[in-house]
Amino acid sequence: MKVVKVGLLGLGTVGGGTVNVLKRNSIEISRRSGCEVVVTKACARNITRERICDTDGIQLTTNPNDVINDPDIQIVLELMGGDEPAKSLILSALSQGKHVVTANKALIASHGNELFAAAADNNVTLAYEAAIAGGIPIVKAMREGLSANKIEWLAGIINGTGNFILTEMRDKGSAFADVLKEAQELGYAEADPEYDVEGIDAAHKLCILASLAFGMPLNFEKVYTEGISTITPLDVTYAEELGYRIKHLGVARKSDAGVEMRVHPTLIPEKRLIANVDGVMNAVVVKGDAVGSTLYYGPGAGAEATASSVIADIVDICRQLDVPSDKTVPSLGFISDQLQEIALLPIEDVTTAFYLRLSVEDKPGVMAGITTILAENGISIEAMLQKEPKHGTTAQVILLTNSVVEKGLIAALKGIESLDSIKEPAIRIRVESLQ
Amino acid sequence: MKVVKVGLLGLGTVGGGTVNVLKRNSIEISRRSGCEVVVTKACARNITRERICDTDGIQLTTNPNDVINDPDIQIVLELMGGDEPAKSLILSALSQGKHVVTANKALIASHGNELFAAAADNNVTLAYEAAIAGGIPIVKAMREGLSANKIEWLAGIINGTGNFILTEMRDKGSAFADVLKEAQELGYAEADPEYDVEGIDAAHKLCILASLAFGMPLNFEKVYTEGISTITPLDVTYAEELGYRIKHLGVARKSDAGVEMRVHPTLIPEKRLIANVDGVMNAVVVKGDAVGSTLYYGPGAGAEATASSVIADIVDICRQLDVPSDKTVPSLGFISDQLQEIALLPIEDVTTAFYLRLSVEDKPGVMAGITTILAENGISIEAMLQKEPKHGTTAQVILLTNSVVEKGLIAALKGIESLDSIKEPAIRIRVESLQ
Repeated sequence: MKVVKVGLLGLGTVGGGTVNVLKRNSIEISRRSGCEVVVTKACARNITRERICDTDGIQLTTNPNDVINDPDIQIVLELMGGDEPAKSLILSALSQGKHVVTANKALIASHGNELFAAAADNNVTLAYEAAIAGGIPIVKAMREGLSANKIEWLAGIINGTGNFILTEMRDKGSAFADVLKEAQELGYAEADPEYDVEGIDAAHKLCILASLAFGMPLNFEKVYTEGISTITPLDVTYAEELGYRIKHLGVARKSDAGVEMRVHPTLIPEKRLIANVDGVMNAVVVKGDAVGSTLYYGPGAGAEATASSVIADIVDICRQLDVPSDKTVPSLGFISDQLQEIALLPIEDVTTAFYLRLSVEDKPGVMAGITTILAENGISIEAMLQKEPKHGTTAQVILLTNSVVEKGLIAALKGIESLDSIKEPAIRIRVESLQ
Repeated sequence: MKVVKVGLLGLGTVGGGTVNVLKRNSIEISRRSGCEVVVTKACARNITRERICDTDGIQLTTNPNDVINDPDIQIVLELMGGDEPAKSLILSALSQGKHVVTANKALIASHGNELFAAAADNNVTLAYEAAIAGGIPIVKAMREGLSANKIEWLAGIINGTGNFILTEMRDKGSAFADVLKEAQELGYAEADPEYDVEGIDAAHKLCILASLAFGMPLNFEKVYTEGISTITPLDVTYAEELGYRIKHLGVARKSDAGVEMRVHPTLIPEKRLIANVDGVMNAVVVKGDAVGSTLYYGPGAGAEATASSVIADIVDICRQLDVPSDKTVPSLGFISDQLQEIALLPIEDVTTAFYLRLSVEDKPGVMAGITTILAENGISIEAMLQKEPKHGTTAQVILLTNSVVEKGLIAALKGIESLDSIKEPAIRIRVESLQ
């Protein structure tokens, strides 16, 4: 059987998991790929550190060039993360005719256009299934499984940390800060949680999913991003009373006006399958014009779940080792010269429904004031809760609006917030029906 | 742009849907595949009948040989269904070097081993994504997306008719026969519903999924099959009280003892995502040793959902038109000479938990008699409901057992049913925790 030598850059969680799965499942992987896949070299910052994997038979080095310049290595796995030196190393490996598999979502989102072009120029593959939603084969589903469709929209829970926090807030009624601390203690959240809870990580993944969906170059800087740190247990509870769950969603949608890419807390009807995706799990709903709604669910992180996607890419490459790259699946699912820039809609032009929570003085005439301003701005009310003050004189009014253009809603809120009876700025959270 | 000519066998629902989607999305399909895909000929039994699709530019014929013998046609779509003449036509098309795409689950399940060998012998592809779970790209997920894994088990709702009936029974408390009638009126169930409600259709799909999971030849005749016509509203209600939903599940599992393939009504904890898959929708959970649990959800039938999968196969073929077939993905995901027969476990040797409903005389000592026999057979009780008689003297006792080997349970039930106080044969439904 043909032997394919693999070199690793990075031997942390994902690298270690990949080595473990490649060894444990070597027979199945050979039976599927037709190749014996062997890791011969791995680069790590510290080669004496204890590892989660057995490194027997793997030559360890601290110099990444030992890996990418090795003429026997046909596939390089970039599992170190970060911008540089990952990017330069990938470019160098590609230029030497090596296939590259990466799990680096930030790098693909920010530099994928350049990297994919380099792969094509060198007639090799740059694969990145592990960059989005861990073990879920969502890149494959979008590039190949749904290739018959005009994709209308997609919506994903694509950050496990954020979903864990929102799930715990709902289940235990806890505040964001308390659950974040718990998540950090459990190892689900980083010491610096900004990347996860402010939606930057999700924005990287969403940007890639949007390009796969609509056939456009990657445009990371155009993703609108809003975090979950402002979500309160009160809003989680009121959403529930209205029949909704709050999820940190990445949404990409295409309409005649252009493409939306946005990451923000979102109310979803509790009946939707994705509203019931809890804990650290990920899921993506994709709506195609022919297929309708499909959903893909699984673990979004973890050593072996991510390794599952890394190795799926390796098997794909092994199956087509000498096939010219223009006869393999294009990096973004569309032939590269068929990618088209599409107008990206600024968030103020996006149309969604809204959940609004207003802190109002508990006296006659307040509701009339609010509803008049909403009506003047063409906004109708789909559902309402009114919560009398437990103590003091501040009541809570919770409204679900119809679908409105965001700038119209902001104008209406400006009017409402200028009313004497309104005590605090309105809380607003977008609502998606996902149908 | 390269033109790829396609010929259709069958111009009914799926064929018509495929023509419609190929026309409507021709630009996206070209941008993804690099080819202009054109249907040039279609064979139908009646060529003057009204169609759901526009047949402009398509030469219609009643003779399938006009399609498969046309030297310009590179891809034949077999969308007629049934055993013969579909099988002979596919073999003839393959032998002429044409790629074939089929949606015919019965044919693949029963004759796939022979058909796949013929495709390989002729260096062409026989693709069948549309044969399982309609628009869900589950074949691709299993053959490629999860290729790193030892698959431990899979469980699927893979017949939309059955799932519609069970969903309605729960939502409306209706009897099976009444809902079946409603489903027939809505066009969700055939006039002869046996194929769907007795699990034969699901068994075809399960057999293919099991071969994809475990790398074994297709073994349709070995699938254990039990239908849903015996499920009563009473059992649906009691399952619900215990925190479960009843679904018609196809389950394939591999253990040291062998492989199980079985289709039967199943209690699933209501917290599982798949327990919340309702109506005509399909979903498959796949458990891999590396990835953990993943789930794939979408419409299991319908003209355009099925067309989505047919066309995804066409795009795959177009992307690799001149690539030797041994460098494309193997038909069952494993290199053909790496498929291995695995012992298939007879149903009496399968281990599952059980839901039992016993109609008992409402008098002292009855429970003692039942529980003693269960204990003697090593069966423990995980949960119990007792329903006093509303009128008469017959009470209902509902038990959930631990996991037991089926023949052990049957032996225990024989003892229980011979007790004087037991009025009717026990109702038993398998329980799967799906974790």
